[in-house]
Amino acid sequence: MAHGTAAVSPLAPKDVPAMPAIRGVRIATAEAGIKYRGRTDLMLMVLSEGTSVAGVFTRSKCPSAPVDLCRANLGGGRARAVVVNSGNANAFTGRRGREATALTADAAAKAVGCDASEVFLASTGVIGEPLDAGRFAHLLAGLGTQAEADRWAEAAAAIMTTDTYPKVATRRARIGGIEVAINGIAKGAGMIAPDMATMLSFVATDAAIAPAALQAMLSAAVEPSFNSVTVDSDTSTSDTLLLFATGAAGNAPVTAADDSDLSEFREALADLLLDLARQVARDGEGARKEIRVTVTGAASDASAKRIAMAIANSPLVKTAVAGEDANWGRVVMAVGKAGEPADRDRLAISFGDVRVAVDGERDPAYDEAAASAEMRQDEIRIGVDIGLGNGRWTVYGCDLTKAYVEINGDYRS
Amino acid sequence: MAHGTAAVSPLAPKDVPAMPAIRGVRIATAEAGIKYRGRTDLMLMVLSEGTSVAGVFTRSKCPSAPVDLCRANLGGGRARAVVVNSGNANAFTGRRGREATALTADAAAKAVGCDASEVFLASTGVIGEPLDAGRFAHLLAGLGTQAEADRWAEAAAAIMTTDTYPKVATRRARIGGIEVAINGIAKGAGMIAPDMATMLSFVATDAAIAPAALQAMLSAAVEPSFNSVTVDSDTSTSDTLLLFATGAAGNAPVTAADDSDLSEFREALADLLLDLARQVARDGEGARKEIRVTVTGAASDASAKRIAMAIANSPLVKTAVAGEDANWGRVVMAVGKAGEPADRDRLAISFGDVRVAVDGERDPAYDEAAASAEMRQDEIRIGVDIGLGNGRWTVYGCDLTKAYVEINGDYRS
Repeated sequence: MAHGTAAVSPLAPKDVPAMPAIRGVRIATAEAGIKYRGRTDLMLMVLSEGTSVAGVFTRSKCPSAPVDLCRANLGGGRARAVVVNSGNANAFTGRRGREATALTADAAAKAVGCDASEVFLASTGVIGEPLDAGRFAHLLAGLGTQAEADRWAEAAAAIMTTDTYPKVATRRARIGGIEVAINGIAKGAGMIAPDMATMLSFVATDAAIAPAALQAMLSAAVEPSFNSVTVDSDTSTSDTLLLFATGAAGNAPVTAADDSDLSEFREALADLLLDLARQVARDGEGARKEIRVTVTGAASDASAKRIAMAIANSPLVKTAVAGEDANWGRVVMAVGKAGEPADRDRLAISFGDVRVAVDGERDPAYDEAAASAEMRQDEIRIGVDIGLGNGRWTVYGCDLTKAYVEINGDYRS
Repeated sequence: MAHGTAAVSPLAPKDVPAMPAIRGVRIATAEAGIKYRGRTDLMLMVLSEGTSVAGVFTRSKCPSAPVDLCRANLGGGRARAVVVNSGNANAFTGRRGREATALTADAAAKAVGCDASEVFLASTGVIGEPLDAGRFAHLLAGLGTQAEADRWAEAAAAIMTTDTYPKVATRRARIGGIEVAINGIAKGAGMIAPDMATMLSFVATDAAIAPAALQAMLSAAVEPSFNSVTVDSDTSTSDTLLLFATGAAGNAPVTAADDSDLSEFREALADLLLDLARQVARDGEGARKEIRVTVTGAASDASAKRIAMAIANSPLVKTAVAGEDANWGRVVMAVGKAGEPADRDRLAISFGDVRVAVDGERDPAYDEAAASAEMRQDEIRIGVDIGLGNGRWTVYGCDLTKAYVEINGDYRS
């Protein structure tokens, strides 16, 4: 049950990038012993004065206390510190949850020398258990002193729960001729004492970008990345994605999201978020295969996304992929249940490069052996053409294996 | 893989009712060898002249060919024959699917001596494979001659796929002082060569009730029964529920659904449908426990149903039940993701009679041992009070076990 005992996912990246420093960002981690033993579970990120912040959060109607705090502080547009703990989600903890976030924010503000409203928090782990912030708040002053720029890998490790590998990504872009860097870390689906999975991601750049422009870019980039990933259709109370821009790179500050100076940055940010999001899908609990569903020809992009999500979330599609079965009948079923405009007799379905169905029937040229070969890959690409319009979307998920049931159901045995 | 080799579900009814004859209904079954060997896979139901019919069908946008035929014939309000085959769903079969339904309906009409528009069809099994109706259409004339009134148990067996037990129910009611009977059969979630589950149910009564009244009663009764059951959130292309009223009981024909003479019948029908629907949930693939989720205090009944469905469909809730874990954090998560009005700090959650959370926090009186005892039951009752309004709903589902993954993913191994 302890962190690190689970085998690393076969879908873990083969090459982990060396994470460069981001000017204006310092990081420190510690073993606070909140729940885990013998590993780090507390991370402090210190941001230089004038750092812009943007964020997106869970759409759950029952968000965690740290999500409430982040939402409240986001209005100011400025950030100086981030505190993340793993082992306890501080969710559904009522008044005591709010007391824990206030205590933590105050301690971080003192450690960094900023206002508590410039502190952002995230917690992941058990829910419903009160989080005793007194266990770690006293460590923040020391972490503020120790924090160094090149600790991104350590940060990614400290925020893990039962993730089987730390998730990092880095990109470069030019803004007005000045090179800037973007680093990101994420954690995905994993449990120790089973509770809900929590998706957390923290991204920082040394670019100078105003909060409103940063938020607009982040909100746009999250749709085709993190909001297009599903492991088990269960939305956490704690999902948090924060993007910080320190401005230390020295580019002329950009204030409008549609400024053409941002075109390269926008692309690099979108690419980095998709990289992290796919790492989360590929480390879904029990995952042995990544599923990439692309729907084309739908009535609209939104319609394509709903159909793609219905396919990627279908237990019958996910178990078929686990069984390496090119079961397109289940894909038809998922298209049908999505409730979106679709005409059975226009559907075309493919696995990888193999078209299995066309015009609402099995493809006359269907080749069972070729389809089976596609299903043995690590990445299963399911293509569905609805044949009605120009809407298209891609979502990323993973298969449903006995290991998922084991991780989430068998822990008492 | 053959029918009958799977162990009967531990949730199978302890007492199976003896099914009485329904005056005006005769049944015959046969081994047509459509896919299975050594078992019946074809059922003909012959209905006396003047029989009213009502039906509800899958909401899938990609319905099967038999569903299309039933929808077309339902407008006439009269039925004389039902043909059901197992082993092939005749879904996503294009033009050939329509040819198969036409051939079957014509053969049944000849066998029974009625118009093809008075024939209703259902098919369950593999999808995407053309159904060769020539394999069994020639058997229908013989079945029409052999059909007997007391063959309800045989009918329930013939329509099974990997159901582990046949599903039957019977009720009695009085209409205007005349006793009438209602019999019903259903099949649920099961696969042989894994394809989608299909829910089929056929109910017949000897009451005299006009088609419009019958339809209104059926549509109302299906909401809290079959439409409140979920095994894996995947909606079949073939779901079909048909209700026939032969009129042979001799009550004064009832034409209005709100006629007070129908009050007892309405209640008996609703009770019978719920009985069958729960049998389907209890025989869900791999199911070891029934889950009954009751949401109260929601903004409306519709809102309560959406929240209850989010809970019953959550893989994390279902695996927690499989692991006998009173994991109310996952219930909170599911409430939050439902997107319905909810206030975290007013939620109360119970397992059976044990309240585990109240006012958005763990119940101060929470008793781990008592909650664990509840989770060891066969029937897990999850209660959620939203604390906002008067909306309430109950849905029925089952746990998610490794057997589900095995049945649907491991069949190639």
